[in-house]
Amino acid sequence: MNDIRVRQVVLASRPHGKVQLSDFRLEEVVLPGPSPGELLLKTNYLSLDPYMRGRMDDRKSYAEATALGSVMPGESVTTVIESRNPNYSEGDVVTCFTGWSTHAISDGTKLRKVNSNGAPITTALGVLGMPGFTAYSGLKAIGRPAKGETVVVAAASGPVGSLVGQLAKIAGARAVGIAGGPEKCAYITNEFRFDEAVDHRAADFKSQLAKACPDGIDVYFENVGGAILQAVLPMLNQFARVPVCGLIAQYDRAAPPGAIDLAGAMRIIISKRLTLRGFINYDFADELYGEFQSEIAFGLAEGRIRYREDIVDGLENAPKALIDMLDGRNFGKALVRIER
Amino acid sequence: MNDIRVRQVVLASRPHGKVQLSDFRLEEVVLPGPSPGELLLKTNYLSLDPYMRGRMDDRKSYAEATALGSVMPGESVTTVIESRNPNYSEGDVVTCFTGWSTHAISDGTKLRKVNSNGAPITTALGVLGMPGFTAYSGLKAIGRPAKGETVVVAAASGPVGSLVGQLAKIAGARAVGIAGGPEKCAYITNEFRFDEAVDHRAADFKSQLAKACPDGIDVYFENVGGAILQAVLPMLNQFARVPVCGLIAQYDRAAPPGAIDLAGAMRIIISKRLTLRGFINYDFADELYGEFQSEIAFGLAEGRIRYREDIVDGLENAPKALIDMLDGRNFGKALVRIER
Repeated sequence: MNDIRVRQVVLASRPHGKVQLSDFRLEEVVLPGPSPGELLLKTNYLSLDPYMRGRMDDRKSYAEATALGSVMPGESVTTVIESRNPNYSEGDVVTCFTGWSTHAISDGTKLRKVNSNGAPITTALGVLGMPGFTAYSGLKAIGRPAKGETVVVAAASGPVGSLVGQLAKIAGARAVGIAGGPEKCAYITNEFRFDEAVDHRAADFKSQLAKACPDGIDVYFENVGGAILQAVLPMLNQFARVPVCGLIAQYDRAAPPGAIDLAGAMRIIISKRLTLRGFINYDFADELYGEFQSEIAFGLAEGRIRYREDIVDGLENAPKALIDMLDGRNFGKALVRIER
Repeated sequence: MNDIRVRQVVLASRPHGKVQLSDFRLEEVVLPGPSPGELLLKTNYLSLDPYMRGRMDDRKSYAEATALGSVMPGESVTTVIESRNPNYSEGDVVTCFTGWSTHAISDGTKLRKVNSNGAPITTALGVLGMPGFTAYSGLKAIGRPAKGETVVVAAASGPVGSLVGQLAKIAGARAVGIAGGPEKCAYITNEFRFDEAVDHRAADFKSQLAKACPDGIDVYFENVGGAILQAVLPMLNQFARVPVCGLIAQYDRAAPPGAIDLAGAMRIIISKRLTLRGFINYDFADELYGEFQSEIAFGLAEGRIRYREDIVDGLENAPKALIDMLDGRNFGKALVRIER
C-alpha cells in the first residue's frame, strides 16, 4: 500500500464577475493507498460543466458552495487501479465525483460502472451521462413536445442542447438551435439535423429567431438565460413549457438595459399560461434513467443520435478550458483528458 | 316585442396607471326585444373582478382588449324576463357575460343555469363561480399541497384567496393568508380559519411573513405579484409550486427599487426547482369543474366552507367599486346589485 502523488486543482479565490485563471491553483498532495473496502481510481477524463461556475460563488443553491482551498468539484471517467472492495476489480471503468484530480479514493458508493455498449467511455460524461440525461429528462418530463410544435434550445452545439434538438426531431417537432458563430450554426443543422440554426452573435439575432420560428415557440429549453431568454419570452405560444436547467449566460453578467423585468415576465407567464419549471437532472432519475440509457445507447448504435466532444489535454489546462466554455469557446462536450 | 331602455357603463378612456372615474361613462341605449331563439335577460348582480383592469389596456393578453366606447366586460347573474328560446323559461336564473349592463340579449349559448343548492344566487359569481373555480383548479391541478406543507395566498379575504386557504386546510396543509389591514387579517383567521394572517401594510411585513412560515413556503398561490411576490420568492422551498392566476398589485405600479429582477428569479427557479405555471380558470374545466361544483356546494351546505361578499348598489357605482377593489378597499367578493 504505497502513497500516491496526486495533482489537483483547487479554488484559490472566488470570482468577481468573470472567472480568471488566478481563481485556481494547481497543487500536489500525497494520498495514502486505499483502506479495506476502498478503491484507488485513476482519472481518465474530467467533465467540465456549467454548474461549476455556480459552485465557485459563496451562494447557496441546490448544492453547497466549494470552500476556498478545496478541490474543484467534477465528475470523471476513471479506471480502478487498486481495489480493496469486493464489488470492483482492477481495470473496471467507473464514473466518480473525483473533483479536478488525477486520482481519487472511493468507498465504492456513488460510482457508476461504465457500460457504454461500444460507445467511447467519454460518452458516460456526455450524451450517455449527466448532460444527456438533463436534456432527456427535461424534454420528456417538462417540455413534452408534440408533433409539429417548435422547440428552441440555446448552446445547441453543446452536449445538452444538441441532444434536446435531436430528441425534439425524433418526437416529430421542429428543432431550432441557437449557437454562437456560423461554424457552430452550420454544424447543428448539418450534423445534428436541426431544422434551423440562429446565431446569437448576429446583429439581427431577434429577427432571425422570429424568422426561424414562424409559428412561435412551444418549448424553450432554458440553459442559458440572459439576452436569449429576453428574446424568447415574447415569442412563446399559449401553453408553452420552459424547462429551466441552467443559466450559463447569467452567471457572469448583469441584466441588459431595457430588459423584460420580473413583473413583465409574470405578465407573460399568466397571459400565455406558461409553465416554467426548474429541475436538476437527477430529479427524474427514478422514473426516466433506465429508458434514457437504453434509448440513447440504441440511437447512438444506429447513428440516429450524434454527439461532439471538445477535449483538452492535461489537468493543468482545465481552468482555461472552463473559462473558454463559460464564454462559449468550446465546440461540443468539454472534457479534460488526464492520462492516456 | 317592445324596445328596452338599457343602462350601460362603457370604457371612455384607457387608464394611465391608476384607473380614474373619468375612464368610464354611463350611457343609455335602446335595445330591440329578443328575436326568435333569443332571450332577454335582466341583470341582478354584476361581478367585479381583477381581470377587468387588464382589459382596459390596449395590450393583447389571453383575451382581447375592450375597445374604447364599448361596454365594460363582466359576468352577471341574471333573470330571464322574456324567452323566445325553447331551452329557457321566464324566471330562469342564469349567469351570462352581459358586461356592465342592466339588460342583455342572449342567443342562449354560453349561459349557465344557476342551481346553487340553496346557496344565494350571488355565489354563482363567487365561491361557486369563476373566482371559486380559479382557487379550486389552481390549487388542485398546480399547487397540490400535501399534508403539513405551507400554502401562502395573498388577497386572502377575497373570493379566490379565501377559498385557497380553506381548501389548503381541508388538504391538511398550513394556510397563511396575506391581507391589507388588521380587520381583514382578523377575519381570515377567525372566519376563514387560516393558521396565520400577515398584514402586507405593516412596516415589518417581511419578518412577519417569515415568522408565519417557519418551515418556508411550499405553495404560493400567486394572485397579486409586486412586492408580495418579491417577499415570497426567497422563502420558497425546494420543489415549491406557484400557480399564477393574477397580478393585481402589478397592474398599476412599477417595480420597486432593489427588487429581484428576472435573472434573480430565474436563479431561484432553478436552484429551488420551482414550478411556476400561469393558468386561467377554464383551463381545467373539463377535468375539474364537476367535482368543484359538488365539493364546494357540499362544503357550503355543511358550513365547512365560508365566503364573504361586498355588495354595492347601482350600476352607476360600479366604476368606483372597481377602483376600490383594485386598491384593496373591498372586503370580500365585489358585486354590484343592479336591481332588487
